[in-house]
Amino acid sequence: MIIENISHSRIDKIDFNDISFGNHYSDHMFYCKFENGKWKNPIIKPFGDITVSPLSLVFHYGQAIFEGMKAYKDKYGNVFLFRPLENFNRLNSSAKRLEMPLISKSLFRDGLKKLLSIDKKWIPNNYGQSLYIRPFLIASDGKLSANPSKKYIFMIICTTASNYYLTPLKVKIEQKYSRSADGGIGFTKAAGNYASSFYPTRIAQEEGYDQILWTDSSTHSFIEESGTMNVFFYIKNNLITAPANKKILNGITRKSIITIAKKEGIKVKECNFSVSELIYNLRKNLVKEIFGCGTAVVVNHFKKIGYKFKNYYLPNISNKKRISFFLKKNLLDIQHNVINDPFGWRFKV
Amino acid sequence: MIIENISHSRIDKIDFNDISFGNHYSDHMFYCKFENGKWKNPIIKPFGDITVSPLSLVFHYGQAIFEGMKAYKDKYGNVFLFRPLENFNRLNSSAKRLEMPLISKSLFRDGLKKLLSIDKKWIPNNYGQSLYIRPFLIASDGKLSANPSKKYIFMIICTTASNYYLTPLKVKIEQKYSRSADGGIGFTKAAGNYASSFYPTRIAQEEGYDQILWTDSSTHSFIEESGTMNVFFYIKNNLITAPANKKILNGITRKSIITIAKKEGIKVKECNFSVSELIYNLRKNLVKEIFGCGTAVVVNHFKKIGYKFKNYYLPNISNKKRISFFLKKNLLDIQHNVINDPFGWRFKV
Ligand SMILES: Cc1ncc(COP(=O)(O)O)c(C=O)c1O
Ligand SMILES: Cc1ncc(COP(=O)(O)O)c(C=O)c1O
Repeated sequence: MIIENISHSRIDKIDFNDISFGNHYSDHMFYCKFENGKWKNPIIKPFGDITVSPLSLVFHYGQAIFEGMKAYKDKYGNVFLFRPLENFNRLNSSAKRLEMPLISKSLFRDGLKKLLSIDKKWIPNNYGQSLYIRPFLIASDGKLSANPSKKYIFMIICTTASNYYLTPLKVKIEQKYSRSADGGIGFTKAAGNYASSFYPTRIAQEEGYDQILWTDSSTHSFIEESGTMNVFFYIKNNLITAPANKKILNGITRKSIITIAKKEGIKVKECNFSVSELIYNLRKNLVKEIFGCGTAVVVNHFKKIGYKFKNYYLPNISNKKRISFFLKKNLLDIQHNVINDPFGWRFKV
Repeated sequence: MIIENISHSRIDKIDFNDISFGNHYSDHMFYCKFENGKWKNPIIKPFGDITVSPLSLVFHYGQAIFEGMKAYKDKYGNVFLFRPLENFNRLNSSAKRLEMPLISKSLFRDGLKKLLSIDKKWIPNNYGQSLYIRPFLIASDGKLSANPSKKYIFMIICTTASNYYLTPLKVKIEQKYSRSADGGIGFTKAAGNYASSFYPTRIAQEEGYDQILWTDSSTHSFIEESGTMNVFFYIKNNLITAPANKKILNGITRKSIITIAKKEGIKVKECNFSVSELIYNLRKNLVKEIFGCGTAVVVNHFKKIGYKFKNYYLPNISNKKRISFFLKKNLLDIQHNVINDPFGWRFKV
């Protein structure tokens, strides 16, 4: 691997007490090209613009996928990734569905490790802060016919991350637009899945919500996920969440929350959960909490659910009593090496 | 508008008797940036690479849309566009759904006209050949949070075009994968709609087909469209095609074919057409023709339909007797200024 170091780090300009998601990018980036059937010439170079053909298939036919993962520090400055193999596998399952070349484990691991070692000082020290890592794969060449590209670029860039949302969320149950379809690509982290959500999300925002709770595209009667989060419902001592089928993103945070909850003796139900059942329980005040979770978001609870022009408010309980806070703390404690890691999720870099 | 001319045209290298779609790109391209809420500094410059940020939202969240249109010459060398206003309107309706800035009519028209006048010699003289024009709009900046980009690039590039397909098509009725959903973005020319089709299309190709005939994502029992074509069925003197709802691309060729057919006294039905009805008619040998149409494809008939591991063959009639050839010739005659244009579709450049 070739390493091109920056001449002067931008890190002095950062106040780590005042970082917000996506505002600062680390000094370097990993870059690798796929040509003639092979990944070649991996390089780490200063973060900056790239040069591509206007024919790049990513522009015309949308071959673009990504991952989102985080690096954490413990109080001794040791660096950990959280379940990186899960991201690696999901990247390749996205690649497969979008007819893109797979990434080898060594390319992924070596690129990531090297980049993190060079930009180590960009990983915040504070508990709850982290370096968000964005591996992404784009089709970089092609011709104007709708066939898979022959050339690709795989890159990794990093941004300092703190809280993604600063407050509890107001979420609208979507009844018109949809995020994905049976037989579609909802389970992948394809770039195209996100652009289609912007317009319905703006409409929801104009109606006073922060995010959308997606429902199935055929009937809008079953709950799927929300924005960049999987969603959990805590009802009568059951933690309920939609099954990770082909229509929703199989979140690594979701998986981890389920595992932690089960270990703590909390009953978890992965099942098709209908909007009407949710509304029934909201009306009866039986829903104790609703929260979303994801790598960027971590865990964030909802305070309001909107459905057909009616709003349902979640109980305003103290954080100490929240199952979402309990699970979030457990997760962060594992990620920051504060407690034991009984599941083998931490990966020391 | 700034014009940067190439120093030496690449056109001498082209044999116009031997062009295939997407193999040659004209000397220049149109380029314009959207920043601070405004389109600014439109420029025509030599066709070539562009420089973008790795954060460009098109890479991560898929804000990318395009159009496909063609410029034709008549035998006197006059240049015509075909229904360009339709492309303009569709581009903006795609932009709206993907929360991207609209393009003004003057920007679109002036960019297009100027580019075509500079690269006029790239428009082939031959009947049936044309210059395919690709306007596209991509999100060029952003930050790693899933929100619409604030910066965009609008470009127009051109490629010489002849036949897209050289033979009749073998098409598989898809029963597992899907292209779009109710409440989704199937009606837009969003880049993301195409990447998701590559994998199912490859599977179909491995089974001996060229393309997929998409069906509705909820039940796979109603016919939608195919690859980059809308599809028509000629059954018992009726020309049947799926309605242009929110799930399929509202093709300009489709519209034009319908208008021409009606004028020629052919009965046209835009209706939900079920797979079972199609198969019934195929079994009874009542389907005279099936064909796809689109700007790139023009009109191309199908010879085989695959459904649940069975193949149905369309009658092998001479081109002279084909309604698809009749309609195609009518369309091309209008496009190349061979016959009158009763509909006002030709736009002289
Ligand atoms: C649509 C969607 N759902 C859920 C998630 C959560 O997945 P993960 O926990 O793996 O970050 C994400 C990613 O952050 C996402 O983009
Ligand atoms: C999915 C799809 N359907 C149909 C068509 C045909 O549309 P048009 O006739 O406007 O080119 C296209 C574009 O070529 C397309 O991409």
